[in-house]
Amino acid sequence: MTDLVIDLNADLGEGYGRWVLTDDDALLSVVTSANVACGFHAGDPGIMRRVCDTAAARGVRIGAQVSYRDLAGFGRRAMEVPADELADEITYQIGALEVFARAAGAQVAYVKPHGALYNRVAVDDEQAAAVAAGTRRADPALPVLCLPGSAMDRAARQAGLGVVGEAFADRAYTAAGTLVPRGTSGALIADPHEVTRQAVGLARDGVTTALTGEPVSVRARSLCLHGDSPDAVATALRVRAALEDAGVRLEAFA
Amino acid sequence: MTDLVIDLNADLGEGYGRWVLTDDDALLSVVTSANVACGFHAGDPGIMRRVCDTAAARGVRIGAQVSYRDLAGFGRRAMEVPADELADEITYQIGALEVFARAAGAQVAYVKPHGALYNRVAVDDEQAAAVAAGTRRADPALPVLCLPGSAMDRAARQAGLGVVGEAFADRAYTAAGTLVPRGTSGALIADPHEVTRQAVGLARDGVTTALTGEPVSVRARSLCLHGDSPDAVATALRVRAALEDAGVRLEAFA
Amino acid sequence: MTDLVIDLNADLGEGYGRWVLTDDDALLSVVTSANVACGFHAGDPGIMRRVCDTAAARGVRIGAQVSYRDLAGFGRRAMEVPADELADEITYQIGALEVFARAAGAQVAYVKPHGALYNRVAVDDEQAAAVAAGTRRADPALPVLCLPGSAMDRAARQAGLGVVGEAFADRAYTAAGTLVPRGTSGALIADPHEVTRQAVGLARDGVTTALTGEPVSVRARSLCLHGDSPDAVATALRVRAALEDAGVRLEAFA
Amino acid sequence: MTDLVIDLNADLGEGYGRWVLTDDDALLSVVTSANVACGFHAGDPGIMRRVCDTAAARGVRIGAQVSYRDLAGFGRRAMEVPADELADEITYQIGALEVFARAAGAQVAYVKPHGALYNRVAVDDEQAAAVAAGTRRADPALPVLCLPGSAMDRAARQAGLGVVGEAFADRAYTAAGTLVPRGTSGALIADPHEVTRQAVGLARDGVTTALTGEPVSVRARSLCLHGDSPDAVATALRVRAALEDAGVRLEAFA
Repeated sequence: MTDLVIDLNADLGEGYGRWVLTDDDALLSVVTSANVACGFHAGDPGIMRRVCDTAAARGVRIGAQVSYRDLAGFGRRAMEVPADELADEITYQIGALEVFARAAGAQVAYVKPHGALYNRVAVDDEQAAAVAAGTRRADPALPVLCLPGSAMDRAARQAGLGVVGEAFADRAYTAAGTLVPRGTSGALIADPHEVTRQAVGLARDGVTTALTGEPVSVRARSLCLHGDSPDAVATALRVRAALEDAGVRLEAFA
Repeated sequence: MTDLVIDLNADLGEGYGRWVLTDDDALLSVVTSANVACGFHAGDPGIMRRVCDTAAARGVRIGAQVSYRDLAGFGRRAMEVPADELADEITYQIGALEVFARAAGAQVAYVKPHGALYNRVAVDDEQAAAVAAGTRRADPALPVLCLPGSAMDRAARQAGLGVVGEAFADRAYTAAGTLVPRGTSGALIADPHEVTRQAVGLARDGVTTALTGEPVSVRARSLCLHGDSPDAVATALRVRAALEDAGVRLEAFA
Repeated sequence: MTDLVIDLNADLGEGYGRWVLTDDDALLSVVTSANVACGFHAGDPGIMRRVCDTAAARGVRIGAQVSYRDLAGFGRRAMEVPADELADEITYQIGALEVFARAAGAQVAYVKPHGALYNRVAVDDEQAAAVAAGTRRADPALPVLCLPGSAMDRAARQAGLGVVGEAFADRAYTAAGTLVPRGTSGALIADPHEVTRQAVGLARDGVTTALTGEPVSVRARSLCLHGDSPDAVATALRVRAALEDAGVRLEAFA
Repeated sequence: MTDLVIDLNADLGEGYGRWVLTDDDALLSVVTSANVACGFHAGDPGIMRRVCDTAAARGVRIGAQVSYRDLAGFGRRAMEVPADELADEITYQIGALEVFARAAGAQVAYVKPHGALYNRVAVDDEQAAAVAAGTRRADPALPVLCLPGSAMDRAARQAGLGVVGEAFADRAYTAAGTLVPRGTSGALIADPHEVTRQAVGLARDGVTTALTGEPVSVRARSLCLHGDSPDAVATALRVRAALEDAGVRLEAFA
């Protein structure tokens, strides 16, 4: 019998000063890995401290959710950042989070690019290499959480970094196993039952149904849940319960 | 025979993006300790990396020059920051620098408040305690470089941190051994010969002449040189040469 | 018969990029004057445009809610800004809003300091004079919305600016007619009925009951409602209805 | 006899807080049009006020040098900003400058995109249209200073805006009359004599010599000088003198 195990990750700490976005406390009771914003697209020192403290207390893995420097755009606007600048910005963000993780008795355990950077490094070899270089400089033991088969995946391996592949419970897949681009009709799965079904399929069987109807194999060690929608916590709880009912153990990657 | 030894510190890395302020490369050939800006009043990830790399290569001690979050004001505008927020901001800045120091094979070895924060924590117990708390959280082994006898000095000791007292070669002293406030006539020593003479007096004898003419005792382990004036490098070189001529050994504090 | 008339003002447009704080659309159906954040503590160009467009369409008066430059602290941290810098920052914010008001077919009709700046200019003559100077430079016809009898009130008059006094429905008053400082027990009025009663008393009779029980006279042309609490809209609607029931006409100041 | 007339424009006000870049005072004695940074890539309220005051006093035309919101990258990193956001950011910047121009007794007379935005709108129809829309909203009478024949040129005309074509004294041209891309060998003309010769050729005859040797016709109403190099003022003075010697009148466009 195979050991069914999956990690649940979500973006946390995405407020800033007076502004709140993610329900960090509630989500930290559901996920096994917390992608913590580091101040470039969201997140401030106080939020980072509180999220690290709570995550450490509950045994949730802490990851650096690194981003373009773009508060006004929430990191959702791709930028033509020269590779060395981008690598430096990645290193800076990891360091800024690391000190809070350490103070909480934990450590930064992985890196996940955010928003426009995530999408860009899925296809852009140069920026992907910069993210890998900036990560490696901070700590060569840090794996990168990213799309399997993406430019980021390749760049991380080339840099000697570990890679953790992730899949999405609420995004439709093509028959080729890639994500249906946002903006395409049906790209986002809104129906909670569909989200739960896809989560279980991905975690238990490594399979889901493509938007075009074919079964499609998607191998991932981590499932990403979205933390910034109004019903994020309810969805996360439902997915977690369904996974446990299906005999899947929830556990952060090593 | 006493062992005459002094540390020379200066603020470095105070550019930002396209803007340059301090001649980091030249100053890193003169000082023994570099107060590196961490991005809150000046400094960006690329500058931090380059300064850390050069400092490490030349054996210059790296310190975190922490500041209020005020790029537009260069950290020269005092802020009423709640103590916990201030402590968090200090921790963040130390962490962001630490990762570059470590990547360069060195480490952050001390903390020095910048500008308005420096002046404020000289007299404000609450903000001084916040700086100490934020420093301690990052690393309880970090000493604070500050004005001897100041609120910062007391707060650091109360938090169990080390303290390194500093004196200024180009600031006039009162007969009581405190700095003549900026804005007072004669507060800044412009004459290069006077600056050099005061530097040697402070380092060799622990004595200088107050603005009012009396000899005054000022004990300090480090001398601060200003890095952001046009003739900063020339002044620094002259002071360093005069100290060496006077038999004072230049060495970072332990 | 006296003509009973009052203005209702609230802070609007206090989101930033991805973050939402105030329910601008709903509040713009209740207030007669909108204090629009200008990007220094909150507000971005897109929000400013949308609020101006809606305000203009509904005949709501547009004011520039000017602040210290402090996104991370939401303008709630007092800053020692030199007078000329502060005046320049005020002018900049007014200009940035004015262009959106004009594009909407309206205009900036007044200035209201925000947060820590509001509290500071209530008592600090120098900063109050700077706000007045920065406002006058933008447009000498702009009145300042502020606390009657405050340093801001005096500075505005001295600069030849108009002044509009405001009172607070949800803040307790002392017998002397000043606000009970936040932090004091009872300073904030939480009971919705109390808030409504005070609003009617202030608008209709220019009188309320001090925290210590005495009747106290408070003359104000505008009532401030808070827009950033979860029940802000409900409270605002209730106050508006109560004022109309009491025969008070709601109308922006001239 | 033809009336030989040319405008000289340069980027000014590109400091920020403590940082200085352009010698605004000296350049304002040479140019006829000042492209004033508005705070998004450089420029702060104090600098904007001082540049506007001096420009107005000397009869120099004031233009809004609008940029992506990117202080850390000095506006040199292209960004995928949604069209409506970009238009809003353009409007905001124009408004923020306008109030200082007006206070100086002048007005914003044109708009010029900066850095990466300039390069992007030369070829990107969507962003060019956004710049045009944001400009038109601020003031439909504002012309856009840009590359003749570029996407920006077309978008401005389509939006009903005026267009002022500019040429570069220190950039090499192709035989087709376009700029040799930066990074290509010979793209930048470093020799002061060459710069002066090209300036005179462009202004007097509308002709210069392409990098490949052919004569090439380049029609422009304005010549751009670079303000941020160490010898910017000396070069500008030399160009101005050579133009006057050649009988070219220096005058801002109408």
